[in-house]
Amino acid sequence: MAKKVLIVYAHESPASFNAAAKDAAVAALTAQGCTVEVSDLYAMKFKAAATTEDITGGVKNAENFCYAKEIKLASEEGRLADDIKKEQEKLKEADLVIFQFPMYWSSVPAIMKGWMDRVLGFAYAQEKRYSEGIFKDKKAMLSFTTDCPESVYSDTGINGDIGINGDINVTLWPLQNGILNYCGFQVFAPQIFWDPATGSPESRSSMLEGWRTRLQNLCGEAPVYFAPLDYFDKEKGFLLKPEVKEKYASKECGLTVGIHMGKPLPANSQTKAGV
Amino acid sequence: MAKKVLIVYAHESPASFNAAAKDAAVAALTAQGCTVEVSDLYAMKFKAAATTEDITGGVKNAENFCYAKEIKLASEEGRLADDIKKEQEKLKEADLVIFQFPMYWSSVPAIMKGWMDRVLGFAYAQEKRYSEGIFKDKKAMLSFTTDCPESVYSDTGINGDIGINGDINVTLWPLQNGILNYCGFQVFAPQIFWDPATGSPESRSSMLEGWRTRLQNLCGEAPVYFAPLDYFDKEKGFLLKPEVKEKYASKECGLTVGIHMGKPLPANSQTKAGV
Repeated sequence: MAKKVLIVYAHESPASFNAAAKDAAVAALTAQGCTVEVSDLYAMKFKAAATTEDITGGVKNAENFCYAKEIKLASEEGRLADDIKKEQEKLKEADLVIFQFPMYWSSVPAIMKGWMDRVLGFAYAQEKRYSEGIFKDKKAMLSFTTDCPESVYSDTGINGDIGINGDINVTLWPLQNGILNYCGFQVFAPQIFWDPATGSPESRSSMLEGWRTRLQNLCGEAPVYFAPLDYFDKEKGFLLKPEVKEKYASKECGLTVGIHMGKPLPANSQTKAGV
Repeated sequence: MAKKVLIVYAHESPASFNAAAKDAAVAALTAQGCTVEVSDLYAMKFKAAATTEDITGGVKNAENFCYAKEIKLASEEGRLADDIKKEQEKLKEADLVIFQFPMYWSSVPAIMKGWMDRVLGFAYAQEKRYSEGIFKDKKAMLSFTTDCPESVYSDTGINGDIGINGDINVTLWPLQNGILNYCGFQVFAPQIFWDPATGSPESRSSMLEGWRTRLQNLCGEAPVYFAPLDYFDKEKGFLLKPEVKEKYASKECGLTVGIHMGKPLPANSQTKAGV
């Protein structure tokens, strides 16, 4: 069955490497028979700030405004601002969501964080999260450019290179676990374009070629590993179950980057599938 | 000498716990003789998206727009948009910057990320970063509310509780290291208000009282530990120097959360000073 793909794209320039990466994804996925929709956030002048204006017909508690609560309620009652509704419609249809952006300050640009805050807001539900999250039948992935070489983000232990920015797997954890996995998305390994601006035209072409090749089988990839919800005890404030702790006690590494159990982090667990 | 403090504040409601935390900081610091300036981002309708409009008098490369490069150049040439200039003036004066916000999706709300993208943009300079960063004589800290209890973010090793969201120290790394430490700020331990919305009025009062008490001696606190720039070899792409690797080889834990050297993370290193 043909897949539906939503690309959430955040770069102002049509001549940027990010634009080329987005165009490559549109072309490759369309050629496979996928339906591809692009939310070009800058072109849409997408509102980034999460405000009371996102809720039509009045907020429930204007005096003590809690965005997460209001947005959830408004979503249930169909009272969300039109731009949020439109994005949620695209999201609802999508089997796969690709976030294409230049990394700004170790994260997504504000305009994309605004998309996440506003469009995904209703999915922030403690009763339905992680492997039971609202989007558990969907896939998502980050595809981004950096302005530094890979070595700067390396941390391959005492025998390998250790770069000044530290382990990229740690940097990715809040985005991939705290947002995508929280919503239930199965997360494909990120597509990282290391410092395309500094490289030669040939190196940029070669990066794009690698991306095109990956896109051929993207939908069949295994996702990045996260701990399943049933490892945690719902009755006890979602703490890791004693039997899981026990099972992992003798292992060399922790479960995931964030759930490291005081052990070394599993290597490359946020950048490679199923490790 | 009296200190100058800038509070970058992101909550829409004057009746929110975040507002109360901000007000408590203003009152306590003013009482100590500090000059306190507040940037109330929602009230200012602060523009979150980093765009070509942030540069006056035309961008250098409109066709292939690179925000980081353009903003740095425009900053040097005094061609930044007025709202950015105003914030940079406040920042220039400040000895301490406090970011007060509700955590949205494991990070700052988009409007605050926008402040970071746009106002701190010029400080993103590979030649002057981390302990040699532009703001190395200033302090900064995160003060934020969560909507979940502390246990959910715990990871105290196999003998303690391990919560479903994983170690908060990992979640904080991209913000505290990737943004604040990168700019050179000495980072005070974060002030974390665990789930004030769910607690009783008494628990909220008690959290604020704890914050007020902390504020009495805040300026004298030791900062969170990060690896100094001279641990890295500038000539070799800012990789950790062999002698530092050697020095840490026999230690039980890695250097920091991100520079973990394949070892267990130093516990609480992003939430407590100097550990």
